Amino acid sequence: MRVSIYDTTLRDGSQGEGVNFSLQDKLLLTRRLDEIGVDYIEGGYPLSNPKDFEYFQAVRELPLKHAKVCAFGMTRRKNAPAETDTCLKALLDAKTPVVTIVGKTWDFHVTEVLGTTLEENLRMIADSVAFCKSQGREVFYDAEHFFDGYRANPEYALKTLQAAATAGASVVILCDTNGGTMPERIAEVVGAAKRAVPCEVGIHCHNDCELAVANSLTAVRAGATQVQGTMNGIGERCGNVDLLSVIANLALKYKHEVLRPESLARLTETSRYVYELANMNFRVGQPFVGASAFAHKGGMHTHAVAKDPTTYEHITPEAVGNERRILVSELSGHSTILTKTAKYELNHDKALMTKILSAVQDLENQGYEFEAAEASFDLLVRKVAKEHKPWEVEKKLKLYKPWFERVTYRVNIEARENGTPITEATVRLKVAGQIEHTASEGDGPVNALDGALRKALVRFYPRLNEVQLTDYKVRVVNPRAGTAARVRVVIESRDGADVWGTVGVSENVIEASWLALVDAIEFKLFKDEDRPGR
Amino acid sequence: MRVSIYDTTLRDGSQGEGVNFSLQDKLLLTRRLDEIGVDYIEGGYPLSNPKDFEYFQAVRELPLKHAKVCAFGMTRRKNAPAETDTCLKALLDAKTPVVTIVGKTWDFHVTEVLGTTLEENLRMIADSVAFCKSQGREVFYDAEHFFDGYRANPEYALKTLQAAATAGASVVILCDTNGGTMPERIAEVVGAAKRAVPCEVGIHCHNDCELAVANSLTAVRAGATQVQGTMNGIGERCGNVDLLSVIANLALKYKHEVLRPESLARLTETSRYVYELANMNFRVGQPFVGASAFAHKGGMHTHAVAKDPTTYEHITPEAVGNERRILVSELSGHSTILTKTAKYELNHDKALMTKILSAVQDLENQGYEFEAAEASFDLLVRKVAKEHKPWEVEKKLKLYKPWFERVTYRVNIEARENGTPITEATVRLKVAGQIEHTASEGDGPVNALDGALRKALVRFYPRLNEVQLTDYKVRVVNPRAGTAARVRVVIESRDGADVWGTVGVSENVIEASWLALVDAIEFKLFKDEDRPGR
Repeated sequence: MRVSIYDTTLRDGSQGEGVNFSLQDKLLLTRRLDEIGVDYIEGGYPLSNPKDFEYFQAVRELPLKHAKVCAFGMTRRKNAPAETDTCLKALLDAKTPVVTIVGKTWDFHVTEVLGTTLEENLRMIADSVAFCKSQGREVFYDAEHFFDGYRANPEYALKTLQAAATAGASVVILCDTNGGTMPERIAEVVGAAKRAVPCEVGIHCHNDCELAVANSLTAVRAGATQVQGTMNGIGERCGNVDLLSVIANLALKYKHEVLRPESLARLTETSRYVYELANMNFRVGQPFVGASAFAHKGGMHTHAVAKDPTTYEHITPEAVGNERRILVSELSGHSTILTKTAKYELNHDKALMTKILSAVQDLENQGYEFEAAEASFDLLVRKVAKEHKPWEVEKKLKLYKPWFERVTYRVNIEARENGTPITEATVRLKVAGQIEHTASEGDGPVNALDGALRKALVRFYPRLNEVQLTDYKVRVVNPRAGTAARVRVVIESRDGADVWGTVGVSENVIEASWLALVDAIEFKLFKDEDRPGR
Repeated sequence: MRVSIYDTTLRDGSQGEGVNFSLQDKLLLTRRLDEIGVDYIEGGYPLSNPKDFEYFQAVRELPLKHAKVCAFGMTRRKNAPAETDTCLKALLDAKTPVVTIVGKTWDFHVTEVLGTTLEENLRMIADSVAFCKSQGREVFYDAEHFFDGYRANPEYALKTLQAAATAGASVVILCDTNGGTMPERIAEVVGAAKRAVPCEVGIHCHNDCELAVANSLTAVRAGATQVQGTMNGIGERCGNVDLLSVIANLALKYKHEVLRPESLARLTETSRYVYELANMNFRVGQPFVGASAFAHKGGMHTHAVAKDPTTYEHITPEAVGNERRILVSELSGHSTILTKTAKYELNHDKALMTKILSAVQDLENQGYEFEAAEASFDLLVRKVAKEHKPWEVEKKLKLYKPWFERVTYRVNIEARENGTPITEATVRLKVAGQIEHTASEGDGPVNALDGALRKALVRFYPRLNEVQLTDYKVRVVNPRAGTAARVRVVIESRDGADVWGTVGVSENVIEASWLALVDAIEFKLFKDEDRPGR
């Protein structure tokens, strides 16, 4: 059975805190969703703001292959004809093949929020659907608060669906607007709705009880054929259902037809694309598509996964375009190192593997952790390989070379009675045989050091301008010794293409930060050398 | 019906990427979990690393009210007696009231990963359970990969449970280790397990399909009486089930007895505490406890919520200690402040409570978080109270007074080619009318500042010698107001009697550390003045 996917990232998703798509973002996302085979794309609420209005004009120029664009709006106002309703007019002016009309199910909302009678609400639904239908549109009817309404007054709730279906809606969508319904109740109520109307039934869930995916799947099992949701589950409060999880489960676990056959392998890429557009951080633990979704840390697990991945993976990561990651941590051993260096095809060289493992263990004893610092691990492999057998290894990976040498650095922080102190850093480096001596102020010591470092290097390596520091974390490594203990600094950097983590450990937080900063810069330089064409 | 909560944040949770608890963190979390009524706390895997071993020694000194601490380990090795097994010995040496033994269910794992026969695996389970039982422990049996094993060979899977139950396990826990099982299947298989064994059945889910909460609730509906999981769902890959969501759903939706009646209102606070300990960022959209979980952005929604919150909220946020946010109002609400100041019996003073709330909100806007910094919160209450109504309030708590004034400080860090830089701090303070000018070297800037501060103060306040800094954490925060990134420093201090956390926020990590250091010192001085006899 095919299950239709109705994406409302651009409308309901943009209700999420901090989410804001530009017109350009909205068009880009529409194209991407069409490419992977999303059936319906809800572009916005044409009456609500000029950006949504412009979107509907611009989207008509896009050469979409499969998706139908939908405009979203409310039923007509009470006690006034549909033909002259401003909202319905805007909806039709959007000139989309589909319009989605939302109306009230819950008697309490009708009387308390709308302030009208139950009968008038039924007429509002019927008139609005019929009018849009008469103008040549396919009409979907979103039954807001359907499950709460059904609990309060089941008979009336079903009547609202019947009003929409009789007036010509091709799908009525049951919305768990407040996200508070339990799965077994979803199954029961979807069943009742199916029996009450001749048209298709859809489901629209929110994640307030962390059950949106389960509720959507349950609804499909109970007969729903359309699932509404958003990419990455962005949306108001705890978000809408994450369509990526719904799609993966429907296709891989229930063998339903969904999107296109080849699209499943693009789910991870789609997830990251949406986060980038929305300027949000990735959620590493996100099911199916997160960077940690197939990451293995425990030594025992790592060992078993190396033997056979199905031991600790329910699907292959490639099925959803994701990849397996073996984390280097205090819990892991030889098999971890083997897996992590697999891409360099050095595994036959057991002596090298042993040297890398022993280098990792030495550093772990000093307080290093590489699991959030894969770039530092990569540099470590290059450093160990350089000491080992350059003539054989060099074919596989660029050996470590220093890109510059530190001569000195100095940081000075001075504070008066109140307010933020003044911070200045100076660095002296040897780059390409020359001494570079630079200085920079900063918001704090790391910022000032970073500034001075870049000033010294950017003339030689202009692509360092692409690097941004995006996160900075500090932990004490053995807390029992208080501030005299060592600190571990983890820095996250990104450029246009990648995100990478580096680590530094020292008794001095400034020195630890320096080490992590230097790794971040060196990794960038090696990375670009590996892929010079990019 | 009571459902037992088994927390494995400290063991399975620490398998999560980037998660690393110090010994002190583990003890603090154990105390907090006990306070809210968690029934079982899995402290670690005594054989795996020295930190877990030390934990089990130290935890015996904690005055726990309700929770039973559990040590986790594997069944005995193949073809060798339980009595001489190193892992089981370590498990018993942990001296916990409960031991949890994990064993293999899936025939494929037995032959391929363990490399033994199906019969020997049954003996390994039975022997290990029986041996621990004979040593006076309550034994829980974790059936790894139960659902996958049951699919492959249902008869054998049930035999492994029966082996454990017959040997004396009081609960057998069905683990969806790979997180790939669908809810309806969970229901079916839990039912089969219930019929096969006379003892209690528990459930342990992972979130790889975003179904861990649904699966855990389904299992309880099918007869499971223990739910295992982690706080905030931290854990390997996509995490374990989030116990906070499970607890809220069990209590509020299914009316089960869980934790203590009053603990539900502490779920939000618990969530944030765990994130702070793990040095992880909060997930704003997290169900029930996230900062956005009851945030309303849509104009229509906001309006309706103002009329009646049940229009767009499935539960009241206060039920889980969270709060409603309209537009961009802040994390902490009135009820939090009331709870946090309850010990001073100032709650009748509504004007004071409002002033404290507003001071907290101002600071939260700057990036402060008080969840792990109750000592800084305590000082804040004293500061606000001082401005308020000294004559009435003073009977209840000592009002804030500065113990010294800062005139200047300066930190200088200088590094040569290699090794740790040299760090020197100087401070000028005004103490009891005198200027104290001191200097100190240190391993790093915070250590040097701390040294100089103490040198200046200890002559006046000798009990500062008792204070040790035990932890130091730094995180970049994006303040809700303002543009430049800030860092939040959280310092943990202890003396013979207490452990306390303080916080400082600034664009400059040194200044943020200074603020947290000063709070740590001032709190110590107030604390000793409150209890001079100690």
